Amino acid sequence: MEHIKKYISEIKDYPKEGIVFKDINPIYKQPKLWNQLMLPLEKLISEAKPNYIAGIESRGFISASALAFKLELGFIPIRKPNKLPGKVIGVNYKLEYGEDRLEIQQNLIERNSKVIILDDLLATGGTANAAGNLIKEAGANLIGYAFLVELTALEGRNKLDSNLLIESLIKY
Amino acid sequence: MEHIKKYISEIKDYPKEGIVFKDINPIYKQPKLWNQLMLPLEKLISEAKPNYIAGIESRGFISASALAFKLELGFIPIRKPNKLPGKVIGVNYKLEYGEDRLEIQQNLIERNSKVIILDDLLATGGTANAAGNLIKEAGANLIGYAFLVELTALEGRNKLDSNLLIESLIKY
Repeated sequence: MEHIKKYISEIKDYPKEGIVFKDINPIYKQPKLWNQLMLPLEKLISEAKPNYIAGIESRGFISASALAFKLELGFIPIRKPNKLPGKVIGVNYKLEYGEDRLEIQQNLIERNSKVIILDDLLATGGTANAAGNLIKEAGANLIGYAFLVELTALEGRNKLDSNLLIESLIKY
Repeated sequence: MEHIKKYISEIKDYPKEGIVFKDINPIYKQPKLWNQLMLPLEKLISEAKPNYIAGIESRGFISASALAFKLELGFIPIRKPNKLPGKVIGVNYKLEYGEDRLEIQQNLIERNSKVIILDDLLATGGTANAAGNLIKEAGANLIGYAFLVELTALEGRNKLDSNLLIESLIKY
């Protein structure tokens, strides 16, 4: 996957000073490259046989829904507060400064069904861990996490349950 | 497609009083149903041969990226203000109360490439029309719009360029 790094734009001081943002939008616009990138996850997820792939708003929706649709699995949206209609379940979690919250629709996931979370980026792991807790809170069986990009220096992987499948495609 | 309506939840007074929100998340979690729903768009878009499918943040990302990935077309994210890294092009547009803005990354789309916008919902048409103007502003060739659900009473279709392909799957 190393040869794909040259298509990932690096944008300095975004979203704030000191951060070099990894922009994978140039991959999504090149379907052959995008398919090539996702191939290992297609295999992995096909073998793991989840019922659902859950994606985290907004960037996380892109590859999670794409892969769910192609593999004929259900897609579950995990969203920021007050974005989902009807009754929701939520979890709050800490950010470097302040707090954030993720929500899922109540009764959208069948109890004990198998869910994989697929997100574009594993950074500090806070969001991924919160999303995982939310899936468990909803009564489903979280079987793992998959990421397109992992920023290894931030050790986000250590925040996640090491008994689960944790896979990333491109490591920095 | 009429038989699919029973899987669309109707949520009263969401996001505000007087609106009955059509929730298609129950379809995304049922892959057979989701695939069945999308089949006419798969055919239509395959025949129209665009280079890209553009999706509008956040719900619009779901089916736009799914179909782009399956049909091996590029996916282009259209986002709310200040969500895209690097240089962007934006358009402002009027809402019932106030104003909103959509943005796209500069130079992400090749000039004169063919683009279809795929969104979950055609309501008043304001967002879809703004997204179309943005695609043209970026120098690309907008060839049409596709929607999962159309609220026909709001006549959003009349806001869109009638020379283009305009298709919706489920009409209310």
